[in-house]
Amino acid sequence: MTSVELYDKTKTLEMRKKLIGQSCRLFFSEDPIKIVRARGQYLYDENGVEYLDCISNVQHVGHCHPLVTKAAAAQMELLNANSRFLHDNIVHYATRLAATLPPKLSVFYFVNSGSEANDLALRLARQHTQNEDVVVLDHAYHGHLTSLIDISPYKFRKLGRQKEWVHVAPLPDTYRGEFRETHPDPAQAYADTVKEVIDQVHSKGRKVAAFFAESLPSVGGQIIMPYGYCSKVAEYVHAVGGVYVADEVQTGFGRVGSHYWAFQLQGEAFCPDIVTMGKPMGNGHPLACVVTTAEIAKAFTDNGVEYFNTFGGNPVSCAVGLAVLDVIEKENLMANALRVGGHLKELLTELQSRHAMMGDVRGVGLFLGFELVKDQTERTPATEEAAHMVKKLRERQICVSTDGPWESVVKFKPPMCFSMVDAERVVGNIDEILAGIETGMAQV
Amino acid sequence: MTSVELYDKTKTLEMRKKLIGQSCRLFFSEDPIKIVRARGQYLYDENGVEYLDCISNVQHVGHCHPLVTKAAAAQMELLNANSRFLHDNIVHYATRLAATLPPKLSVFYFVNSGSEANDLALRLARQHTQNEDVVVLDHAYHGHLTSLIDISPYKFRKLGRQKEWVHVAPLPDTYRGEFRETHPDPAQAYADTVKEVIDQVHSKGRKVAAFFAESLPSVGGQIIMPYGYCSKVAEYVHAVGGVYVADEVQTGFGRVGSHYWAFQLQGEAFCPDIVTMGKPMGNGHPLACVVTTAEIAKAFTDNGVEYFNTFGGNPVSCAVGLAVLDVIEKENLMANALRVGGHLKELLTELQSRHAMMGDVRGVGLFLGFELVKDQTERTPATEEAAHMVKKLRERQICVSTDGPWESVVKFKPPMCFSMVDAERVVGNIDEILAGIETGMAQV
Repeated sequence: MTSVELYDKTKTLEMRKKLIGQSCRLFFSEDPIKIVRARGQYLYDENGVEYLDCISNVQHVGHCHPLVTKAAAAQMELLNANSRFLHDNIVHYATRLAATLPPKLSVFYFVNSGSEANDLALRLARQHTQNEDVVVLDHAYHGHLTSLIDISPYKFRKLGRQKEWVHVAPLPDTYRGEFRETHPDPAQAYADTVKEVIDQVHSKGRKVAAFFAESLPSVGGQIIMPYGYCSKVAEYVHAVGGVYVADEVQTGFGRVGSHYWAFQLQGEAFCPDIVTMGKPMGNGHPLACVVTTAEIAKAFTDNGVEYFNTFGGNPVSCAVGLAVLDVIEKENLMANALRVGGHLKELLTELQSRHAMMGDVRGVGLFLGFELVKDQTERTPATEEAAHMVKKLRERQICVSTDGPWESVVKFKPPMCFSMVDAERVVGNIDEILAGIETGMAQV
Repeated sequence: MTSVELYDKTKTLEMRKKLIGQSCRLFFSEDPIKIVRARGQYLYDENGVEYLDCISNVQHVGHCHPLVTKAAAAQMELLNANSRFLHDNIVHYATRLAATLPPKLSVFYFVNSGSEANDLALRLARQHTQNEDVVVLDHAYHGHLTSLIDISPYKFRKLGRQKEWVHVAPLPDTYRGEFRETHPDPAQAYADTVKEVIDQVHSKGRKVAAFFAESLPSVGGQIIMPYGYCSKVAEYVHAVGGVYVADEVQTGFGRVGSHYWAFQLQGEAFCPDIVTMGKPMGNGHPLACVVTTAEIAKAFTDNGVEYFNTFGGNPVSCAVGLAVLDVIEKENLMANALRVGGHLKELLTELQSRHAMMGDVRGVGLFLGFELVKDQTERTPATEEAAHMVKKLRERQICVSTDGPWESVVKFKPPMCFSMVDAERVVGNIDEILAGIETGMAQV
């Protein structure tokens, strides 16, 4: 046992298996990593071995950022009462967030997790519209709560059940979906599939409360929605009295580089009715949020039933959130995401010419993914090879993970301080590992 | 504007009304307090005016306890990655919690709020039993999520809807309910009402997944379950294949003084199948938990669907939780709750002889309440008088609030460092205010 541990790794693992619900899988579950320290984009295990972290999107401004720690500690020392007492932090934080959003999105609800945010979004949508049904995208994941498992095809398909009020539209995936990069107008074509779903809902005598989608579908495989899709969908949803909920839990706070929110990639004409935020918001501190219009908020207040979230919007959580906004700005992390993400994407794209398995490289800013395929024509997902890639990169002290319906997409959602050198190191290693796989295949 | 404010109070209030969802009401909403600093059981407003805090059960070991702040800051500086990486804190914390519980309750799931905990409890119960229905107590509140509004009569009655899978049993209230303090065996009588509800469920061809109740119903009016009730209910629920969920979100962590968990007041023979914990767990840090049996946890794992909670069980949350356990122990806060709570209850009981409005004084440790009534025979709830009491105490810099179906119960759930002097000060003021109300009434 090292001096930085309470238990040696074998013991920790043994205790974990016994004491902690096994429904939560460890990273690299066959040979998990024990991390005791982290800084920026680097993780350190109990022996001081350094790992490059390409997946911790929660630790948005870098692991253990000193300004965030300082802000949290200072506020913890002063006050951490609940939001039934008046306090400046909550209103100041709301003002700062409002400045990043279209003016229409002006009423905030602070909560403790992306799941709490998405559940509240659902409640707001239903209360406002007085409708019940929800249209979601295939393969979507919106959180671990009962109501969110219900609207997450990624989960409810595995459980073999679908609620009668949930309706699934195709993922607007131009690499694997029905309408691909060669289609003249995939945005319109995919939006029309949503329209068809809405029509089916109505033909059953039901009514749509919300269209619910991540602004960039993440578990779905780091999908970039075709430009124009969201506006058209919003138009169809509004026409039947529903609202558009943009789940920005994974994608917000400047990760896409060019904009603060991924939905803004769809142009200024598009504005969701409800936006949910989470993971990166507190850099690891449990903090999340729902923002909506004054009209929807009013409908929720007018039902006369109070909504109180015990920890939501407390002075410490807000101080942490404010510090994160400050660091994003002071360290120009959006510009960094754009520059480094752009370079990383370029380097990965370059690999396509040399490796037949590099099926697609996609993403914006530091929200990127590449898909491994067995062949370029059929685009057969190379699931095992992707798992092999993850394993091999881990041996080279680089942490990545996979996503997508076939776990064939290797994803990058690193802390926003990820550097050019990090990008080059990762791609160099991927290049070698791909060459290794190809040699291995040639030998078979 | 004072030097400790970002905005003056009028401005803060104005911003709050515009920017923050109005579904969350402020304390003393007609004239809210702005709190900028707190320590122990004392709150300080922007002008340095001190308030005695009788209601912040979340700040369990006292507002801004330095050991909690220190533990949080130290861990924030070191690491705050998610629980997919192996870490000692989560297993160490689970071990410490396990030591306070019956051995049967051995598998932990860490989450961010009591609501997340109760939702997960519901998922565990349903997965294990493969049943859907839930029996709850009247007036219960279990959280703000969609699934929990459904099982909270306190909320769903206001919305005018009840799900077909939710069934309500009477609150075992020996002061106001059907079976009162004069009944020879209220525990058996109230347990039988649950049996009747279960029988009705079965007669509809439905099946019970869980009986879900706070160990001491809180929103229901600081109710003490009659001894033996829980064991009998558990027997009836188990007989039909359901599980017993004890919601300890408000009542756990030694608040009752004699035991660590309020369900333990029902004797050693009683052990719930699932226990949820929340509010006081992190002294204000968003931290909550579900603990269950190995068997129920296994059923949840075996469904093959992963449960991942992004912030749940992170090293900082666990460090905070561990510090709270340490302070409870080091400062003998359970003994303090017993001693001070006992004294407070005695002093309040004494008031009954002098004030006809003092209807009932009940509670254990620092979970106490007294009920104001218009008359001792009919026990007519004195709702307005209770509101008046809250207002008058606030003018004397003492914060309390009301609960119960008629908001006629003035409740005490102060930080556990509440002192004998605090108790005497509160009761002295209540005495005077009651006398004032009586004089006023006499004048009418």
